[in-house]
Amino acid sequence: MLKFDLLKTDPATATYAGSHARRGRMTLQHGVVETPIFMPVGTYGTVKGVMPRSLEEMGAQIILGNTFHLWMRPGLDIVQQFGGLHAFEKWNKPILTDSGGFQVWSLGEMRKISEEGVRFSSPVNGDKLFLTPEISMQIQTTLNSDIVMQFDECTPYLSIDPKTKGQVITEQEARNSMALSLRWAKRCQAEFAGLENPNALFGIVQGGMFTHLRDESLAGLEALDFPGIAIGGLSVGEPKAEMMRVLQHVGPRLPAHKPHYLMGVGTPEDLIAGVQNGIDMFDCVMPTRNARNGTLFSRFGDLKIRNARHKADPQPIDTTCTCHACAGASGISWDEGGRDGFSRAYLHHLDRCGEMLGPMLTSIHNLHYYLNLMREVRAALDAGTFGDYVAQFQRDRARGV
Amino acid sequence: MLKFDLLKTDPATATYAGSHARRGRMTLQHGVVETPIFMPVGTYGTVKGVMPRSLEEMGAQIILGNTFHLWMRPGLDIVQQFGGLHAFEKWNKPILTDSGGFQVWSLGEMRKISEEGVRFSSPVNGDKLFLTPEISMQIQTTLNSDIVMQFDECTPYLSIDPKTKGQVITEQEARNSMALSLRWAKRCQAEFAGLENPNALFGIVQGGMFTHLRDESLAGLEALDFPGIAIGGLSVGEPKAEMMRVLQHVGPRLPAHKPHYLMGVGTPEDLIAGVQNGIDMFDCVMPTRNARNGTLFSRFGDLKIRNARHKADPQPIDTTCTCHACAGASGISWDEGGRDGFSRAYLHHLDRCGEMLGPMLTSIHNLHYYLNLMREVRAALDAGTFGDYVAQFQRDRARGV
Repeated sequence: MLKFDLLKTDPATATYAGSHARRGRMTLQHGVVETPIFMPVGTYGTVKGVMPRSLEEMGAQIILGNTFHLWMRPGLDIVQQFGGLHAFEKWNKPILTDSGGFQVWSLGEMRKISEEGVRFSSPVNGDKLFLTPEISMQIQTTLNSDIVMQFDECTPYLSIDPKTKGQVITEQEARNSMALSLRWAKRCQAEFAGLENPNALFGIVQGGMFTHLRDESLAGLEALDFPGIAIGGLSVGEPKAEMMRVLQHVGPRLPAHKPHYLMGVGTPEDLIAGVQNGIDMFDCVMPTRNARNGTLFSRFGDLKIRNARHKADPQPIDTTCTCHACAGASGISWDEGGRDGFSRAYLHHLDRCGEMLGPMLTSIHNLHYYLNLMREVRAALDAGTFGDYVAQFQRDRARGV
Repeated sequence: MLKFDLLKTDPATATYAGSHARRGRMTLQHGVVETPIFMPVGTYGTVKGVMPRSLEEMGAQIILGNTFHLWMRPGLDIVQQFGGLHAFEKWNKPILTDSGGFQVWSLGEMRKISEEGVRFSSPVNGDKLFLTPEISMQIQTTLNSDIVMQFDECTPYLSIDPKTKGQVITEQEARNSMALSLRWAKRCQAEFAGLENPNALFGIVQGGMFTHLRDESLAGLEALDFPGIAIGGLSVGEPKAEMMRVLQHVGPRLPAHKPHYLMGVGTPEDLIAGVQNGIDMFDCVMPTRNARNGTLFSRFGDLKIRNARHKADPQPIDTTCTCHACAGASGISWDEGGRDGFSRAYLHHLDRCGEMLGPMLTSIHNLHYYLNLMREVRAALDAGTFGDYVAQFQRDRARGV
């Protein structure tokens, strides 16, 4: 099931040009999701380094799982025994799973694509495997994710074909790939219906950097009337300006009464640009991966905790932040007088010593930052002040930590 | 400050032989500690993989810090700026710090011991360093730990001297080492007083495997009237029977009105044996280290989560356990009908995928197991049923998971 309510838009006024931003509400089998929303990534059935309770505390409404990885480990027999991914990983709110297509695509020369599907060797144990639109639907039905993604071919920016490797994908290559994804979309829909999967299946717009192909892809998906639409094939190695060009073309053309999901994007600035162009849902490994590498997000710009300047700093990562790392159990930010948070000096020390508590705290912070950014965006849309909010966001981020 | 109240002992009855077990209460600068107690080890200012809030939730009353490691990283200037270790690591309850002696001893041939102290090269940056009883007291005063340990030489079981390496320590070697520790005890006491450190300094009984040397060491420390006494130099490579022989000799001879601390020991069975022989305080890296290696403690014996038999098991680690790993947010054990805990199947999967959440959950469980074991021991001593408790403990542990 999926019910999408479009609550508010961001119209122009006498002094403001307006944007395509939308405030929405999505009702799924396992709960309600207020949009725009960021979805933490839980590849192997765990958001890396973060307890489910911490995710709930920081206001995560929906998390991702990776079909390909979960198919490899723990395997479907185990997940089936638990009645799905929710009970296995102890997360009772909505879950979205990707189709496995992106991961298979990432295997590069280890995989062979045909009309039927993709043949590849398991990177875990070398087993010969075959992934098709139908098998992806079967796996995602076993996972019982609230949002199922169609199996697609993610068109890369640079070719990974041995003959043309490293060259920018041509219009013909992008067209063939987009058309294949569209044929697979139909097969996914048929299989999803046959399985009587009670959840929601999303289609994915492909077409590379060619806006007319994106239009064709979108038209084809609209004809199939998926309950939600994603933009795939962005943030796949293209220059940022190219990504923005395609986003600005496709985002505003997505059907207004359905949720819009921009896959695998991006920085805080990318999320704001996405919202401005009509995107409701985002996912990205950046907050958790950067946390483990010591790059921390804050209202006033990014911060590298390994830098010696933080060695003796008693302040938390972000003095306005109420996450457990910055504000401790009290939840009172440094700027509000709270002194329960962990200092930059302590996080610097933990990183230097390779202590697990470092990434545990910084992963909480970075995810909280992304979730709070979307919370603030929703509040601004509710209040009709999104334009002002974006201007303030840009000023704050430019200030520097 | 240290106030120790001996609340209850474990006398013989018509049907029970009694033991040297004691139920006590220790009041320190940062709070009250109910004994017998297990103290989680926080080497670098963090109990590995565990948040301070989790430690509080599982009932930790006092944790350890390692003087040597904290001296190296973050360094005393940083800790001093925070006014001590408590504020730096965000732990407001009591802290005990070791003296640094054990770590310096562990450097093996990289260090040179003299009457004055120990010269060694920093394992972090190669700097030439000198650690003496006086410097150890100065460092621990900066750390502001509630319990300060005297600087001692930990007599090994097998010699690490290049000339006699691998041979069992002789009576003469153990005597010389014990006498040096005793002279250092006096110097520690003088320095501690001169620093006007408001906390409590413990002496350490040494003497190797020679009970008459242990007696001499204890007599020397009693003459100095430390507010607490530790047994050092056990669990340093000797056979278990040797450890038990020394423990059974020294434990019951410790002064009744002072807290007794058995350093660096041990398994759940060792802790019970320690309590039976008059020990009030224990520390050991075993619960956290074993958690990271996949060896989990339970009421019904130990469990290796990497074993394939756990692959599909929906039960938590210990069906009687109320820790966050076994009982989730509800805190209701599996046997009481709770189903919020994480399954063995999930923990097996996390371990297989190298996911951080695995050691995060198992570290909580193993520490909770140790803390709960001591909680049950205290309740049994309060109720006058310690003998029965030990018998049940042994039956349960022998049952197997």
